[in-house]
Amino acid sequence: MLKYQEIAREIEKKIKTENLKQGTKLPSVGELVAQYKVSKNTILRTLKELEVKGAIYQVQGSGIFVRRRNRKGYITLLEHKGFSGDLDYLEVESKVINFEIVAATEEIANNLQCEIGDKVYLVKRIQSIQGQILSVEESYYKKRLITFLNRSIIEGSIFQYLEEGLNIHVGFSDKYLSVHKTKGQISKYLGLPENSPMLLVEEIYYTNNGEPFDFSKLYYHYEHSQFFLQS
Amino acid sequence: MLKYQEIAREIEKKIKTENLKQGTKLPSVGELVAQYKVSKNTILRTLKELEVKGAIYQVQGSGIFVRRRNRKGYITLLEHKGFSGDLDYLEVESKVINFEIVAATEEIANNLQCEIGDKVYLVKRIQSIQGQILSVEESYYKKRLITFLNRSIIEGSIFQYLEEGLNIHVGFSDKYLSVHKTKGQISKYLGLPENSPMLLVEEIYYTNNGEPFDFSKLYYHYEHSQFFLQS
Repeated sequence: MLKYQEIAREIEKKIKTENLKQGTKLPSVGELVAQYKVSKNTILRTLKELEVKGAIYQVQGSGIFVRRRNRKGYITLLEHKGFSGDLDYLEVESKVINFEIVAATEEIANNLQCEIGDKVYLVKRIQSIQGQILSVEESYYKKRLITFLNRSIIEGSIFQYLEEGLNIHVGFSDKYLSVHKTKGQISKYLGLPENSPMLLVEEIYYTNNGEPFDFSKLYYHYEHSQFFLQS
Repeated sequence: MLKYQEIAREIEKKIKTENLKQGTKLPSVGELVAQYKVSKNTILRTLKELEVKGAIYQVQGSGIFVRRRNRKGYITLLEHKGFSGDLDYLEVESKVINFEIVAATEEIANNLQCEIGDKVYLVKRIQSIQGQILSVEESYYKKRLITFLNRSIIEGSIFQYLEEGLNIHVGFSDKYLSVHKTKGQISKYLGLPENSPMLLVEEIYYTNNGEPFDFSKLYYHYEHSQFFLQS
């Protein structure tokens, strides 16, 4: 981790542990330079990082202030896979209910930019928080890129395995959101009556070369999930 | 508009008018420098801008490539107010159905960080596309900051008026998303049976001083709206 990221993390931690409210004034650039014994440039990069993350805002001629969402229990929509850290204090449990190699349907092929019939890993999981079902997730991984997966990998962090094991780096992602009525198997998994409201989030993850490798469909339980987005 | 933004806009326009596909290779940094007769630094800022906007991606040692969503008719979740440009070729019509000054309820006061009973402008609008209802919007503007509004302003671009007329600049926004069943008046406005699925987007807009001035609740018709998000 680079120095400016390290300092950013420390400031973020301070905001959390001291439970600083939105609008709390933070030390000035000069004070931060003195405090962390780094160059002004490093501090400016730190502040840029914190600003992009939505942890602070800067007012010209006035200073640096804490930025915090004022609601708890919301999932951050822009974070990459894995909810940890979003739902403060709450542990998300993930249970694999299906794991197999299947042939890409037209829908999968379109989203993964591959041929119909190409091999893809299908991983189906149910996510829950404190015994409440949060979502059902259906993920399709392009086998040509993700050459190997097994149960123990998919029960841990797939993304960490991709980075460290397969040297595949996530470049960017597209997310498509739409609202539907629950149908069939999904209703059962979510424990909801047929035709209940449901948020569907379709995510496509690309490598840093721009090739899609993961197409996921997340079906969210409308009573147990809420989302947050900063801009 | 600064030079690097101007060039960014030109490149974006070129991608749209020539309908370049995702993955199309764009000219190199050197070629762009020669083409636009600007410094390398300007081009690097242009590319950063386009990258953040999700219009391109860069692959180290390989080049600059077009990034495009592969689905049409989705509303970009991160754009500020106003859908123009998102739903390509489709015009969003907005009809004001209520405009008055009301006293802030507890909910409004919490979100606008003001006192219960403080005066707020309430603007209620119905948005539609080609005769189909997209959403119902209830916006509350803090009167202490937004000192004056009238029908002709709210029928145009409120945000442009704030910037140019009141010198209020938008700093950042929070968005909260949740899924519900439609109830009462909202069902009627959306033209849906009671208990239909519905996406509620609550938006809070802050000035560049960090003060909230606009709290809006947008109720989306689940069959006529879909959303897009890049990261």
